[in-house]
Amino acid sequence: MELTVYLAGEIHSNWRQEIKKLANQKNLPVSFKGPMENHEKSDRIGEDIIGEQPNNILKDEAASSINNLRTHIWLKKADIVVALFGEEYKQWNTAMDAAKAIEAGIPVILIRPEKLHHALKELSNKAQVVVETPLQAIQTIEYIFAEE
Amino acid sequence: MELTVYLAGEIHSNWRQEIKKLANQKNLPVSFKGPMENHEKSDRIGEDIIGEQPNNILKDEAASSINNLRTHIWLKKADIVVALFGEEYKQWNTAMDAAKAIEAGIPVILIRPEKLHHALKELSNKAQVVVETPLQAIQTIEYIFAEE
Amino acid sequence: MELTVYLAGEIHSNWRQEIKKLANQKNLPVSFKGPMENHEKSDRIGEDIIGEQPNNILKDEAASSINNLRTHIWLKKADIVVALFGEEYKQWNTAMDAAKAIEAGIPVILIRPEKLHHALKELSNKAQVVVETPLQAIQTIEYIFAEE
Amino acid sequence: MELTVYLAGEIHSNWRQEIKKLANQKNLPVSFKGPMENHEKSDRIGEDIIGEQPNNILKDEAASSINNLRTHIWLKKADIVVALFGEEYKQWNTAMDAAKAIEAGIPVILIRPEKLHHALKELSNKAQVVVETPLQAIQTIEYIFAEE
Amino acid sequence: MELTVYLAGEIHSNWRQEIKKLANQKNLPVSFKGPMENHEKSDRIGEDIIGEQPNNILKDEAASSINNLRTHIWLKKADIVVALFGEEYKQWNTAMDAAKAIEAGIPVILIRPEKLHHALKELSNKAQVVVETPLQAIQTIEYIFAEE
Amino acid sequence: MELTVYLAGEIHSNWRQEIKKLANQKNLPVSFKGPMENHEKSDRIGEDIIGEQPNNILKDEAASSINNLRTHIWLKKADIVVALFGEEYKQWNTAMDAAKAIEAGIPVILIRPEKLHHALKELSNKAQVVVETPLQAIQTIEYIFAEE
Amino acid sequence: MELTVYLAGEIHSNWRQEIKKLANQKNLPVSFKGPMENHEKSDRIGEDIIGEQPNNILKDEAASSINNLRTHIWLKKADIVVALFGEEYKQWNTAMDAAKAIEAGIPVILIRPEKLHHALKELSNKAQVVVETPLQAIQTIEYIFAEE
Amino acid sequence: MELTVYLAGEIHSNWRQEIKKLANQKNLPVSFKGPMENHEKSDRIGEDIIGEQPNNILKDEAASSINNLRTHIWLKKADIVVALFGEEYKQWNTAMDAAKAIEAGIPVILIRPEKLHHALKELSNKAQVVVETPLQAIQTIEYIFAEE
Repeated sequence: MELTVYLAGEIHSNWRQEIKKLANQKNLPVSFKGPMENHEKSDRIGEDIIGEQPNNILKDEAASSINNLRTHIWLKKADIVVALFGEEYKQWNTAMDAAKAIEAGIPVILIRPEKLHHALKELSNKAQVVVETPLQAIQTIEYIFAEE
Repeated sequence: MELTVYLAGEIHSNWRQEIKKLANQKNLPVSFKGPMENHEKSDRIGEDIIGEQPNNILKDEAASSINNLRTHIWLKKADIVVALFGEEYKQWNTAMDAAKAIEAGIPVILIRPEKLHHALKELSNKAQVVVETPLQAIQTIEYIFAEE
Repeated sequence: MELTVYLAGEIHSNWRQEIKKLANQKNLPVSFKGPMENHEKSDRIGEDIIGEQPNNILKDEAASSINNLRTHIWLKKADIVVALFGEEYKQWNTAMDAAKAIEAGIPVILIRPEKLHHALKELSNKAQVVVETPLQAIQTIEYIFAEE
Repeated sequence: MELTVYLAGEIHSNWRQEIKKLANQKNLPVSFKGPMENHEKSDRIGEDIIGEQPNNILKDEAASSINNLRTHIWLKKADIVVALFGEEYKQWNTAMDAAKAIEAGIPVILIRPEKLHHALKELSNKAQVVVETPLQAIQTIEYIFAEE
Repeated sequence: MELTVYLAGEIHSNWRQEIKKLANQKNLPVSFKGPMENHEKSDRIGEDIIGEQPNNILKDEAASSINNLRTHIWLKKADIVVALFGEEYKQWNTAMDAAKAIEAGIPVILIRPEKLHHALKELSNKAQVVVETPLQAIQTIEYIFAEE
Repeated sequence: MELTVYLAGEIHSNWRQEIKKLANQKNLPVSFKGPMENHEKSDRIGEDIIGEQPNNILKDEAASSINNLRTHIWLKKADIVVALFGEEYKQWNTAMDAAKAIEAGIPVILIRPEKLHHALKELSNKAQVVVETPLQAIQTIEYIFAEE
Repeated sequence: MELTVYLAGEIHSNWRQEIKKLANQKNLPVSFKGPMENHEKSDRIGEDIIGEQPNNILKDEAASSINNLRTHIWLKKADIVVALFGEEYKQWNTAMDAAKAIEAGIPVILIRPEKLHHALKELSNKAQVVVETPLQAIQTIEYIFAEE
Repeated sequence: MELTVYLAGEIHSNWRQEIKKLANQKNLPVSFKGPMENHEKSDRIGEDIIGEQPNNILKDEAASSINNLRTHIWLKKADIVVALFGEEYKQWNTAMDAAKAIEAGIPVILIRPEKLHHALKELSNKAQVVVETPLQAIQTIEYIFAEE
């Protein structure tokens, strides 16, 4: 039985590629979904589809309605959400995606550097598993399939 | 992963064919469902199956029980509902299908001409994405699958 | 035990006052909720609260976000939704409110003139009870409490 | 009928007092709940109850398990969540509380300074109403009760 | 804390009065709801409200839509459903009410004469408690409140 | 897309074979599930598995726990329940299966002879479609797939 | 706003009285529910109500159907479940009550001696808060109401 | 149609192999899932992935968070849970898994030696089927698929 994993978190680093490569090396029966990682395209998708908007707030509103649709579709199909917090950026999206998953009964594996523990203490407490690296997240998923 | 899309809205124009042709041109992994588009058959399906009814209200009641069954089955299997409002007809069915989907947690892409905005303002606010053409609806669905 | 009834439908006639008067005459233990009936206030509530908007679409969007909040709060607390359709106006809101209630498991009493039957045949089939006048709707609610 | 409002967001400013004072001035039938606002007590509640912990991560874990219990209890009883984002702090808790409420079907009124729009664009799109000040949030709640 | 009990089953005998009298004698904090017990009124309530119908099937359809509304409202508010089967009548309503309650998570106390065991074996297996008399049903409810 | 149909109702006649043959003739993409139709085996399955029971009530209890497991598994996987009532037998199981399906949001097609209308009026009102013959039930399902 | 707390766990010691006394001393707006604490009455309630049973298994089955009804009613009304494990007895009921509450979205405060940690490690991980004494459980509940 | 069965219970004996062998002999279309049966690996998986912990409680906490993730994923995909209780060990996990499944609407087949009946009487009453051997559990599952 294959599992679907949604990868929530920053789109500025290549952590998703690392996760996918590790899963591939271990031959895990897992498929991955996630947000649009092309940041520029993500920001302008509203205007790309419905045309130029009068100001930046409306440009953002148009884009976020389409990005939220994408996130909703794939996150609701996920068996597990892996959420990664880095040391930069506000990352409110990541917190939202993780909380939405937890409320919907989808378990979350949280990846965060130890130094973010205090700021993330409530989310750490709600996450099913807390780790510090993509490798540890993949080892956790590997264990779900392990037979001995 | 394939997505299922329910196409709610008028059956008097050929907008569903346009949507399907566009999805096909883009090779989107999407299957479509929708109501019976043969209007006459839709109206007389009750009498076709259970026999002539004493008056038009009962003919309508018999037909709508069967059309509602069809809608219920396919709409509940949909990942996305695309709902199109044209400038004619009462289209209460379309409003109902959209609202049912939203309450059931299925996101709605609303297609409507700009001039209907005021009459549709509450539904526009509830829809996940609002566009004006079938092409824009398909571009929105295309983005869900886009990888870069 | 008191029941809460949400009155969905047009705000251009005084049917809600008629319903309330009839319930009062019969001493029914019922409280009523519904949308803002002051049409002008309803349309400009977005601008009243968050300030002037650049165009009518945004004015409508601001207003509908607040009107939808109001509807959501009271409709979800209702034990019964009474939905009235008149012969004028598009009334897509009414169809949405009725469909939302039905999907949420709240039964709907539909009031409509007989001549609207064909256009409303799918909603009639989904409504728990279909009547033609506010008095019949109140008699239906009265029966819920009747002991002999 | 009284409504319960959960006030999610920073505990470093006195915005909750402002909200409560405004609601009081308008005689709104609303009761408020929220997190422990005594920051120091909130951080040390785990150790206060179960005793000193070997390190800060465990101190945080103990505290967050109890703070999350409090939040869960009151947020699930709320009819509305008002979530305020200020310009400082990570505020991942606020994003989590808002997303949890939305997933649970509880509408969110988001208060944020306009300059945070880009970082909050996905949450803005999911919130039912977006405003910039506590007064506007209270005016929105006032409208839910307004009769004319 | 008071409990609400829905009394499902035949309306041809006075078992509900017996149940209520016993609960009253024991001062149980319980309120009872149930169907219209005036059989003739129950059968003609459709025509009483919406007018004479062309045939008996439509008369029955009109009546059952209103009786089902009543049952739905009160059964969904119940903490417990007591369902009594006698030796006569088809009692499909009683079986439906019991199954609806069980699927909705409301426990059922089944009262039936021992000789009906074979015909009711599937419902007996699904009911939380099976007894043979109204007194035993009330003793079961009494135990819920017993403190020693 | 294939649909799954649960066939609830009496196991004394061969109506299921008729339904399956008709679906086969029309090449409908439908698979059928239902109860154990070998009546004797159904009644003694409890004793067959867990051994002889001290009396008939316990024999029935053992059998019904296993038959209810079977029904629960297949009914919850169904897209549609077809429930047939004949003129004999108590058929409380059929009423239970239909009510369980409706409460779980699975639509029911009810097959019953017209003469049973009065006794079945509440279930008729709750069923999505009411017909009189297996052929009409299959024609209704055929329409769900019809494209023109 | 008052909270309801279900006290799951052994009925051989007087820990519930200790909990109630502590809550009373602190004037917490909390009401408590729990199982029948009279062990003998709990074991024989089935026979007390439906009469002598042929063997101990059936006596137990009759009693447990009624005790499970009681537990279901009160546990589902609880805002919080406090579950205490002592060092004796199998206490499978307590584990069941705690797991049922967690799956139903009701948070659990687990009281257990530290030496039981290994055997209870999975439940500890699922409980919202883990403490060692009734006093700590009450202090946790007190914090939910604390305002500064 | 294949069914998925989760095997909850002790990992000290080879009962799962017996179950699988029997299902294989009968060619049942069933796939099995369960916990990690390598006890030592199960206990140290937390430290294996996130590194050495300061004490045994934290080692257990780390391991149980990962084991609970595994259980949650597979149990929620199951159509049936088979739960086996042996005469040794505390087996609180097994009671939790069974109760979680029941609350989530997944039926449980309980395997237990007759002598455990009293201690397991509440769980026996909640389980859909109670048997004494793995063979009887497989015969029960075989019956779900039996056609005559």
